[in-house]
Amino acid sequence: MKKELLKVLREKKPLVHHITNIVTVNDCANITLAIGALPVMAHALEEVEEMVSAADALVLNIGTLTNEQVEAMIKAGKAANRLKVPVILDPVGAGATKFRTQSSKKILEEVKISVIKGNSAEISILAGKGGKIRGVESQSVADDISEAAKDLANAYNVVVAVSGVTDIITDGKRIAYVKNGHPMMGTITGTGCMLTSVVASFCGVCEDYFAATVEAFVAFGIAGERAAQSSNVKGPGSFKVIFFDEIYNLTPEIIEKDKKIIL
Amino acid sequence: MKKELLKVLREKKPLVHHITNIVTVNDCANITLAIGALPVMAHALEEVEEMVSAADALVLNIGTLTNEQVEAMIKAGKAANRLKVPVILDPVGAGATKFRTQSSKKILEEVKISVIKGNSAEISILAGKGGKIRGVESQSVADDISEAAKDLANAYNVVVAVSGVTDIITDGKRIAYVKNGHPMMGTITGTGCMLTSVVASFCGVCEDYFAATVEAFVAFGIAGERAAQSSNVKGPGSFKVIFFDEIYNLTPEIIEKDKKIIL
Amino acid sequence: MKKELLKVLREKKPLVHHITNIVTVNDCANITLAIGALPVMAHALEEVEEMVSAADALVLNIGTLTNEQVEAMIKAGKAANRLKVPVILDPVGAGATKFRTQSSKKILEEVKISVIKGNSAEISILAGKGGKIRGVESQSVADDISEAAKDLANAYNVVVAVSGVTDIITDGKRIAYVKNGHPMMGTITGTGCMLTSVVASFCGVCEDYFAATVEAFVAFGIAGERAAQSSNVKGPGSFKVIFFDEIYNLTPEIIEKDKKIIL
Repeated sequence: MKKELLKVLREKKPLVHHITNIVTVNDCANITLAIGALPVMAHALEEVEEMVSAADALVLNIGTLTNEQVEAMIKAGKAANRLKVPVILDPVGAGATKFRTQSSKKILEEVKISVIKGNSAEISILAGKGGKIRGVESQSVADDISEAAKDLANAYNVVVAVSGVTDIITDGKRIAYVKNGHPMMGTITGTGCMLTSVVASFCGVCEDYFAATVEAFVAFGIAGERAAQSSNVKGPGSFKVIFFDEIYNLTPEIIEKDKKIIL
Repeated sequence: MKKELLKVLREKKPLVHHITNIVTVNDCANITLAIGALPVMAHALEEVEEMVSAADALVLNIGTLTNEQVEAMIKAGKAANRLKVPVILDPVGAGATKFRTQSSKKILEEVKISVIKGNSAEISILAGKGGKIRGVESQSVADDISEAAKDLANAYNVVVAVSGVTDIITDGKRIAYVKNGHPMMGTITGTGCMLTSVVASFCGVCEDYFAATVEAFVAFGIAGERAAQSSNVKGPGSFKVIFFDEIYNLTPEIIEKDKKIIL
Repeated sequence: MKKELLKVLREKKPLVHHITNIVTVNDCANITLAIGALPVMAHALEEVEEMVSAADALVLNIGTLTNEQVEAMIKAGKAANRLKVPVILDPVGAGATKFRTQSSKKILEEVKISVIKGNSAEISILAGKGGKIRGVESQSVADDISEAAKDLANAYNVVVAVSGVTDIITDGKRIAYVKNGHPMMGTITGTGCMLTSVVASFCGVCEDYFAATVEAFVAFGIAGERAAQSSNVKGPGSFKVIFFDEIYNLTPEIIEKDKKIIL
């Protein structure tokens, strides 16, 4: 069943409402289209509730947050909760400033989140296990990030997904390790944000958010591997172009063949 | 005469002032440069009037509107009206939320618009003929979108341009159908916004805004066709890169040869 | 020593905090990564001081300024001054509107800037020597832009860098002319902003900001030349992709071999 999730996604074309940062917003829209979903970006307090009411998933990404934006996120998130629309939180830079840590926690307290997707430092910090972040990049993390992720998942009854060389996805009970991906993905900005958009796209068509998130990580990582192997890649500029092509050209068969999941 | 409009554009390099969304603003700047005009983006209330006073065209694109931004649009639009600078409105997502519909109408009431460019749902909704939009993508529209476009054109004494498989451009009396374009253009975000920037670029050098808009749609569609035919296109990433190249490499001769207009 | 500055940069990976415009923010993040540094973007008043305290350089770019953003820039800039973090100012469009000219001057008065990087009109205007700008592009400048740059450098005890066919970098005493670069760089938006990010990246690892700025201009110009010479460049779309690759693939040896500096 899971094998065909990409097919379902492309048939249903879920609408993914983003409230996100100004740095990678264009990439998030394009990756959402490339995987087969439909992006819409809207952050005005006057319209977020109405926009999310038409959506199949909501992304809250705090990459360039402001107080007003966090307010819009919470308003949209509460509407999503009422409508059973899954909410995906990307706590970009949690730990880098108090404002980001507190805003992430505030969103977690006020909105029922479906999936938290972060790097190891962000997850470690939100789990209360310490960790250090430099700008928006992990520097040090909890000794056992799997345990931190599980604790966070259980604390908020949420799927927690930690991106890294080996990705970790857990709902507090189940845990999956995904080994797909390639170091070239770290040479461009926005891969983290784009992955969150892809997670939301899959959650928009699959109520088992753990399974949806695993599938998203696998698909995203495989596209990265395939792009990196292209003889046309000469650096991050060409990698990015071909990465979008590879996301677009993914098939359930490619995912089945190349997936590296340890359950 | 119309054949040479691109030549005039590249000689005069009109300055196109944009008040636009955060998703596609970079693409709009780059497409404006690629067609041969000069983009400038400025939205602060403190400077929009002064900035538009140096401009040859003004783009108002509500893709990620806020109340304050709409206020800046109206202020800039009124200044543009006083100075006879053409104003191009892209009512992105009108119909998706009341806020977008009402803001579009408010701009239309308070500013003399030269060209409204939208998809069929946006135009149908602004014409009061119903229609349905999902996020920012047309779902259903008036039975006869040509009539809806004409009615809207006559109601506001404006050129109305409807993008679609066949584009429709009308000033309420004249009507043109443009058959240029390619489905690959729908695989990336921002083609609608970019087209609006190209319309504004042509309107900045041609007072017959109907003719200017037709030329812009034709040019844009031809570049899309040429890009899609490239053997280097493997998906939306590479398509986008080559599309910018093709816009830049357009000539009056290519446009004359490949245009598909039904008047 | 200077020859190896790129090596130092890539070892230290300086964190470059940007408060910048919505048009080119993604390009600035990607160029910062490509040269070997680490970008972070944050503009909320609540966090700019804390974010800059972890940074090695601060970019203030007024490309789409608002009053609130200028306030955040000054707050971040003052914190940077206390912490001896270099501050790089890009006064985009100074002269195009009073708001931009006055905001640039306000920042210069309230924050100790390390490097001002602008085009010739922006620098001429800030030096009080007149000049004319159309949108954000130079139209006319002081008779002797070198003298204007020196005056500005001495007035604020700052390095002044003027981008152009021949770039001029001066600290008021020393002056360098850089002849690297290529006209294709003007076919895409954001090269000016990206250059500022690269200047900041070098200043983040070298306290001689004059030397760091010269090295940044040389490196940036060489990458532009190398990209433009690629047989894969067919226009601005492909140029931009390959330009990022070339920044990433720069080595101290390439810089040493291709640099065109007149001291």
